[in-house]
Amino acid sequence: MKAMTSKTYTVLFTPEQVEVQVESGTTILAAAAQAGVFINSLCGGDGVCGKCRVIVRLGEAQGGTTNHLTRVEIQQGYILACEGRVMSDLVVEVPPESQLTSDMLAEEHPAEQFAETFLMRTHVPKLDPLVRKVYLELPAPTLENNLADLERLEHALSKSLGTQEFQMGLKITQRLATLLRSSDWKVTATAAYRGSLTEITEVECGNTSRCNLGVAVDVGTTTVMAQLIDLTTGGTMGIASRYNSQIRYGGDIIRRIMHASQEEGGLSTLQQAITGDINSLIQKLQQKFRLGCADITTVTAAGNTTMMHCLLGILPDYIRKEPYVGAAYCPPPFRAAEVGIKINARGLVYCLPCVSSFVGADITAGVMAVEMHKSDKLTMFVDIGTNGEIVIGHKEFLVAASASAGPAFEGTDSHDGMRASAGAIDHLQIYNKDRLLSFSTIGGKPPVGICGTGYIDLLAELLKNGLMDKRGKLNTTCGSKRIRSGEHGQPEYVVIRARDSGRGKDVVITQADIANMLRAKGAIYSAGQVLLQSLGYTFDDVERVLVAGGFGTSLNVESAVTIGLLPDLPRQRIQFVGNASISGAGLAAVSRRKYDEAREIAQSMTYFELSTDPTFMGELVSACFFPHTDIQRFPSVMEALADGRLSKEG
Amino acid sequence: MKAMTSKTYTVLFTPEQVEVQVESGTTILAAAAQAGVFINSLCGGDGVCGKCRVIVRLGEAQGGTTNHLTRVEIQQGYILACEGRVMSDLVVEVPPESQLTSDMLAEEHPAEQFAETFLMRTHVPKLDPLVRKVYLELPAPTLENNLADLERLEHALSKSLGTQEFQMGLKITQRLATLLRSSDWKVTATAAYRGSLTEITEVECGNTSRCNLGVAVDVGTTTVMAQLIDLTTGGTMGIASRYNSQIRYGGDIIRRIMHASQEEGGLSTLQQAITGDINSLIQKLQQKFRLGCADITTVTAAGNTTMMHCLLGILPDYIRKEPYVGAAYCPPPFRAAEVGIKINARGLVYCLPCVSSFVGADITAGVMAVEMHKSDKLTMFVDIGTNGEIVIGHKEFLVAASASAGPAFEGTDSHDGMRASAGAIDHLQIYNKDRLLSFSTIGGKPPVGICGTGYIDLLAELLKNGLMDKRGKLNTTCGSKRIRSGEHGQPEYVVIRARDSGRGKDVVITQADIANMLRAKGAIYSAGQVLLQSLGYTFDDVERVLVAGGFGTSLNVESAVTIGLLPDLPRQRIQFVGNASISGAGLAAVSRRKYDEAREIAQSMTYFELSTDPTFMGELVSACFFPHTDIQRFPSVMEALADGRLSKEG
Repeated sequence: MKAMTSKTYTVLFTPEQVEVQVESGTTILAAAAQAGVFINSLCGGDGVCGKCRVIVRLGEAQGGTTNHLTRVEIQQGYILACEGRVMSDLVVEVPPESQLTSDMLAEEHPAEQFAETFLMRTHVPKLDPLVRKVYLELPAPTLENNLADLERLEHALSKSLGTQEFQMGLKITQRLATLLRSSDWKVTATAAYRGSLTEITEVECGNTSRCNLGVAVDVGTTTVMAQLIDLTTGGTMGIASRYNSQIRYGGDIIRRIMHASQEEGGLSTLQQAITGDINSLIQKLQQKFRLGCADITTVTAAGNTTMMHCLLGILPDYIRKEPYVGAAYCPPPFRAAEVGIKINARGLVYCLPCVSSFVGADITAGVMAVEMHKSDKLTMFVDIGTNGEIVIGHKEFLVAASASAGPAFEGTDSHDGMRASAGAIDHLQIYNKDRLLSFSTIGGKPPVGICGTGYIDLLAELLKNGLMDKRGKLNTTCGSKRIRSGEHGQPEYVVIRARDSGRGKDVVITQADIANMLRAKGAIYSAGQVLLQSLGYTFDDVERVLVAGGFGTSLNVESAVTIGLLPDLPRQRIQFVGNASISGAGLAAVSRRKYDEAREIAQSMTYFELSTDPTFMGELVSACFFPHTDIQRFPSVMEALADGRLSKEG
Repeated sequence: MKAMTSKTYTVLFTPEQVEVQVESGTTILAAAAQAGVFINSLCGGDGVCGKCRVIVRLGEAQGGTTNHLTRVEIQQGYILACEGRVMSDLVVEVPPESQLTSDMLAEEHPAEQFAETFLMRTHVPKLDPLVRKVYLELPAPTLENNLADLERLEHALSKSLGTQEFQMGLKITQRLATLLRSSDWKVTATAAYRGSLTEITEVECGNTSRCNLGVAVDVGTTTVMAQLIDLTTGGTMGIASRYNSQIRYGGDIIRRIMHASQEEGGLSTLQQAITGDINSLIQKLQQKFRLGCADITTVTAAGNTTMMHCLLGILPDYIRKEPYVGAAYCPPPFRAAEVGIKINARGLVYCLPCVSSFVGADITAGVMAVEMHKSDKLTMFVDIGTNGEIVIGHKEFLVAASASAGPAFEGTDSHDGMRASAGAIDHLQIYNKDRLLSFSTIGGKPPVGICGTGYIDLLAELLKNGLMDKRGKLNTTCGSKRIRSGEHGQPEYVVIRARDSGRGKDVVITQADIANMLRAKGAIYSAGQVLLQSLGYTFDDVERVLVAGGFGTSLNVESAVTIGLLPDLPRQRIQFVGNASISGAGLAAVSRRKYDEAREIAQSMTYFELSTDPTFMGELVSACFFPHTDIQRFPSVMEALADGRLSKEG
């Protein structure tokens, strides 16, 4: 007798042309996950975010109507993938704005952009990688020189590295005698840093010391980036990035933590997702440079505290519960294989240290990379990401806060926002009273949405051109044809008309989007303000503002000041330093001293809890103006807005 | 079609009553190994040693005649187990002298004998075990005290241990958060010493710090001894020992090395044999004291260089090939599970360090235990085992040599010799012109053979009573009824008549046995002589002679001097210190400082190669007299022999 089974249907996803068999009733989002097709989904399938719009081209899918779709869209076959259920064979089109392609950003934005940043120009550490390969020509033993094989090796390595204490696995110890003799006492030892102890992780015949590679990884909530480093020169060979596959389980950190804590096997799923991403990036870089897996001896990783927990398979649940304490901020190195990362079988993963639940290893790495901890100058380090972390200090002290800004500038929280991938508008200027818009897109592709840097430019331009007032309200009476009444009667500004867009739909910024970003920029600015105040400083005391962010493209500092995201200081004090997290991870890979420095930084950094500060709420409210309620704080912007000088004529 | 198969027969071994099915043509020795019945075999089955005599009581076994068996014996059914092949169902009796029972020596000779030795009385180290269990009541995290779980634990442990650097496995890190909270922040951390680094190997709920046990192991070529230590007090709970099961693959070190190097899977077989022995001893001690496996966190091991290699599964082949260099003398700690020893899943095995191929960790452990390296007094340390190692020195220097004495005093190389197990004559005196012999046996059992200490007494008594001359020749003309012509016409001395023995056969010492022991004692004495000479000393300069040996019972120092095994010095300078190897291993288990000291000792000790010294052969020949060619060197013995004072009248 056959057991009763539900019907199975075939779903074909376009444009990727991937087919999958699923049971009747499966959601399209689940079918896509099974097929390996990435669909943008921030809420993890709750029908809340409305990001996972797909078009059913053939067949029948069951699914309710939703505020996120218009009547016309529903008639065109649009459905939310998380709500639509497969009830027949289907052909499903994933429109560009819903695609989570795994573009290699770095191929669009060459690695040089990183090499040319602030960081690489100023700080080249002494080459002393966490994992070193040392070629040794050992003296063959004689009756007079009769050290045992292991001690002979350690003796030579000691001379070369200046370290005394060694550790070695049993398996290598067991094959050492045969290996040394078969290689005529000419071997390459791989020596991994474990503080005062050095682990000999590998011994190979002959001279393989030229092949020693490390991978620095920035584990972003949204994007995972990997940098391949030649550890024998310290040089970057290539950079690759892709979306964090965990996105399908939720766009923000809290949803990820919930998934890890509350779903059966959730933590393991998240860990497999992120290690899978890292493995895929490593594999791509490997293939590109025709490298063997065994040549990669080191992975250094930085990311926010939750991502570091997920990477290591450590439950992040307590991060979100008072008193907000993680399980491990300074974990020791682990065997990569045990973590699930495919490099040399005995290679190690070194995690950079976190400071607190909401100030992660990405911030430590960034501070280390920009050398705040060594600077005489009072510096403000701002990382514009999902949280928006601020660090203030110099060589004498470091204080950090997390602004909980939300992911507004990651382009994921707004109507036509998108991540910095192909077709995203990344820079924009409004000319001629908004009759002409000049913009650039990532990869030079037709525009399909707006990413973080694009939004910052857009807001500044709207403000400067009087299309939006200081409270962030679109000026519906200024006569601009681009301002119209959108869904639910809310005003919106049309950036790109459907005919010019890459997705056959207008690209707009809505009143709600602006409100979102106003809160986010307000949170970041006021976090800096309150932090400074608590330390007895004002913005004027800040000698350097270093802005970090994985925008994938350079931030327009002028725009950021104009909207009040950054303080109105002489512009030479403000620098954009790019993805400082991966820079820091890379520095640690090539320098043991840097790795140790990062740990010292994490230990010395003080975490300042904004939410319990009595002045923060007031400052936040005041900062929710473009550029600020107290316009006196932004004299250059005030002046520019007053004389209309910035309002360009085409 | 059925494949052709050879016939299968059943062999029943008595007195153990163990049955086994083997194929026709299998040797009885192989059948016994398969059945788990231990049969004495020194040559590993080459038909050379003649030790593996068994009696076929029923059935047919094929096997040649041999010099090792008399005609009468052959008629009685005696056969060498290594030569006899199973040609029918058999009943095979293993006579007492061929039995390798796994008696627990320590139960016959209570543990106090060790506790009462020289060692324990003088040197009680500060309790600081290699693996410590520390109970911690951590402060629960608050918004103010928001260290992560791991750092909170490390911080508390740091205070308690005074160490700073920690290492922890991924699995423990992963379950730390849940464990700390479920135990209300009251946990016990297990901290294992790895030099400058401390590995946290375990974290348990509540206070388990009272359960922390270590096992010190002396891996002897012949006997494996294990000492269970309460690491929370440093006290010895119990001692157990058994034969090294590797004996079935050869009685001496060279045969073991050959087996490891030349037989398919030989190394692995030897490793499994020794780890099996250690596991069985640990299990017995565990059961006796009703302990869980997980309570044992530490194993410290000492043994000669070959045994240490076999224990770790490292090929010992290069030890026996010029320039005689081992693979690892100072290995790092390894996970016990990886080595194959069953204790706590993350427990560690710490090997004491070897000095050279022929001066092993047993010697380092011994020197450390007797504190030669701290003494102002010029000391000679003599370990009477298979090799016979000598160390001379004091706190300024240590020089060691291996005498290659052979296993004469282990009682395995002689006609009726046996190891120090039940029924072995361990002490003996001759009275009344040899009409009366007084002796003691191990376990008070009827005598079945003679062990090392028994032979030393016997030789001294034969010499003092004029029954043997200084060249070791039995005095066939003195009228003693015990001296007779034995096999092949060689003289032999009857120690026990068949009617009084526990095996229905005379127990004798043959002329060949005496020659063997003469060479062995000559080698040990002359090694000491040449070593001292090379350093510009004579025996008179030696302020202390410390004699170590796993005899299982105390050595009669007077007898040892009488036969010239030990120099004729004022007796108060000579002390028997027992099994110093296991004492040293035990000290290391309870003291990190002692473990480090052992490594310093091994590094500072100089190995002196006797075989290439031009004076050694001459000295060896001169020493092959009882007590010595140059009788002036033994004034007290000369005096005693001259006035016949020592020849007792009954």
